[in-house]
Amino acid sequence: MSGEALWRMSVAVILASLATSSALAADPALRDDALALFEPIPLSPDPAPDPAAVELGKALFFEPRLSEGHNISCNSCHNLGTGGVDLAPVSLGHRWQKGGRNSPTVLNATYNTAQFWDGRAADLTEQAGGPMINPVEMGSTAEHVIEQLKGIPGYLPLFTAAFPGDADPLTFPNTEAAIAAFEQTLITPNAPFDRFLRGDDTAMTAAQQDGLRAFMDQGCAACHNGVNLGGNSYQPFGLVEKPDWSILPPGDKGRFEVTRAEEDAYVFKVPTLRNIAITPPYFHSGSVWDLNLAVGVMGSAQMGTALDPDQEASIVAFLDSLTGDMPQVVYPTLPPSTADTPRPQQ
Amino acid sequence: MSGEALWRMSVAVILASLATSSALAADPALRDDALALFEPIPLSPDPAPDPAAVELGKALFFEPRLSEGHNISCNSCHNLGTGGVDLAPVSLGHRWQKGGRNSPTVLNATYNTAQFWDGRAADLTEQAGGPMINPVEMGSTAEHVIEQLKGIPGYLPLFTAAFPGDADPLTFPNTEAAIAAFEQTLITPNAPFDRFLRGDDTAMTAAQQDGLRAFMDQGCAACHNGVNLGGNSYQPFGLVEKPDWSILPPGDKGRFEVTRAEEDAYVFKVPTLRNIAITPPYFHSGSVWDLNLAVGVMGSAQMGTALDPDQEASIVAFLDSLTGDMPQVVYPTLPPSTADTPRPQQ
Repeated sequence: MSGEALWRMSVAVILASLATSSALAADPALRDDALALFEPIPLSPDPAPDPAAVELGKALFFEPRLSEGHNISCNSCHNLGTGGVDLAPVSLGHRWQKGGRNSPTVLNATYNTAQFWDGRAADLTEQAGGPMINPVEMGSTAEHVIEQLKGIPGYLPLFTAAFPGDADPLTFPNTEAAIAAFEQTLITPNAPFDRFLRGDDTAMTAAQQDGLRAFMDQGCAACHNGVNLGGNSYQPFGLVEKPDWSILPPGDKGRFEVTRAEEDAYVFKVPTLRNIAITPPYFHSGSVWDLNLAVGVMGSAQMGTALDPDQEASIVAFLDSLTGDMPQVVYPTLPPSTADTPRPQQ
Repeated sequence: MSGEALWRMSVAVILASLATSSALAADPALRDDALALFEPIPLSPDPAPDPAAVELGKALFFEPRLSEGHNISCNSCHNLGTGGVDLAPVSLGHRWQKGGRNSPTVLNATYNTAQFWDGRAADLTEQAGGPMINPVEMGSTAEHVIEQLKGIPGYLPLFTAAFPGDADPLTFPNTEAAIAAFEQTLITPNAPFDRFLRGDDTAMTAAQQDGLRAFMDQGCAACHNGVNLGGNSYQPFGLVEKPDWSILPPGDKGRFEVTRAEEDAYVFKVPTLRNIAITPPYFHSGSVWDLNLAVGVMGSAQMGTALDPDQEASIVAFLDSLTGDMPQVVYPTLPPSTADTPRPQQ
């Protein structure tokens, strides 16, 4: 081996060793800076919801008979096998109708300060019944949901156990509350980012740590902060520069539809970035499949910054560190139908 | 208390005691007669399928991206939460198209000697791919299924682990074989009837035991026998007397569509009666929701017997003893999509 070859090899070994060692030494303030903006997901739901409500809520979450056609459950569009979403631009609902916006993940939704892209539900309980009675989603009505559940004899004991103080426990609000209780358990702790925040220097790769620094330096964390890296504020999409109409369709004015306030036109709830790497496509329009491109769109639309491909890739490396442990859910056995149970409207 | 009241009370106590005691003493040959016709479901799959194939097959069973719209999985129509069926006359498939026949249960399907109502698939492996490439079901093609799975990077390692001897393991036949391996685990042992067959005199109520005797005496067991109480022969629906066309639609000639033999017109595979109480509606047409009525139809159509309501109820009591322990399945985390994964055709 020539002297030059030896020299090149030594340099390569040193560089490789630098790349695999923790970058923390190079950025000693990284964890403290991050802890000022973010917090890890608790290792278990806190407060822990009532087990009887969770058990009922789990059955209801997977219950296709809550839909008019008996073929769509909460899990259809918030699939626990695919990051709590359906991996589609918009969801397919009753009679194959398309929904208006991309299905947001149910995972860690308990940490959002409001639900839906426009925040029209204050919490999980208020959200849970919405899709059931939306004509383009599950296509039922609040009255029929209760008629349906009362027509499945096994549900009454589950409602009674979950709401022991209620004289008439099988109600639409209790249906929503039980689903919300189950959804409170759908958290994804232990992402590399969480383990890093908790003090594990080896949890995130150097590239992910660099990406975290870029994420903070570029201003992403101005909106994507807190335990959910988002989900806690409303922002105009296109704060600095409106993105292409294919990404921000003109017909959907976001929170304006809720408040009718002109300043809420094209304002949306900032989505969580938890598990973002496994929940394409992106934005309320579900129009962007490539996370690098989505990061680039955010840079120009929200910050007026043209991120270069290396910057995008660095931030995406950080986003990859936000995928946590998926909830372990035993598929529920649902109470049987009888000859008198209301039948599907196909 | 008057003498007459005391007398009435004593008679009531004696009758109640007779009703709750095992009826076996009254029918000492019942178990032996039953064991000549039926056998219990094994407590665990035997032979046990390969764990790596089961793990892959479980993911594929719950994989909506196998459908053209990415919204229908095997579990949509063979829902493990509802007895392995969808509790609908016929299933709703791609673009809300209706299937031609009632979705048969996947539970214990491994014990059927052939699959589909017309037996057109020899076994679970041959069956598994059918719905994926049926235009009115999942609406994909064999080529696209493989393109789709190859476009989800996490699948190749699962196929390699399940089929270690194959140079190119990610194939349509292996997709089918893995799903079949998972389905071999979907058995429901420990039904009261199974525990009775194994020697537990308290497993079945007296009414259920009486129903078992009626089931055998009336001739039901001529076709509904073996481990699955059916699933092992073909019979003309309407052997003695054609049922109403709403139950036996004239356009569906059953096994004739497979063999083109005139004697196979309106011939169907005898369905399993395992878990029948929780899998309405009944028959290939899914036209009857009431199990008592279904039993009555069978009496007249297949045996030329007009069962009276007590006889129907007695047989239904026996059928209630065929509901076993549902498989405990942890909902799988599916491999993530990427920006390059083929997208849903909505």
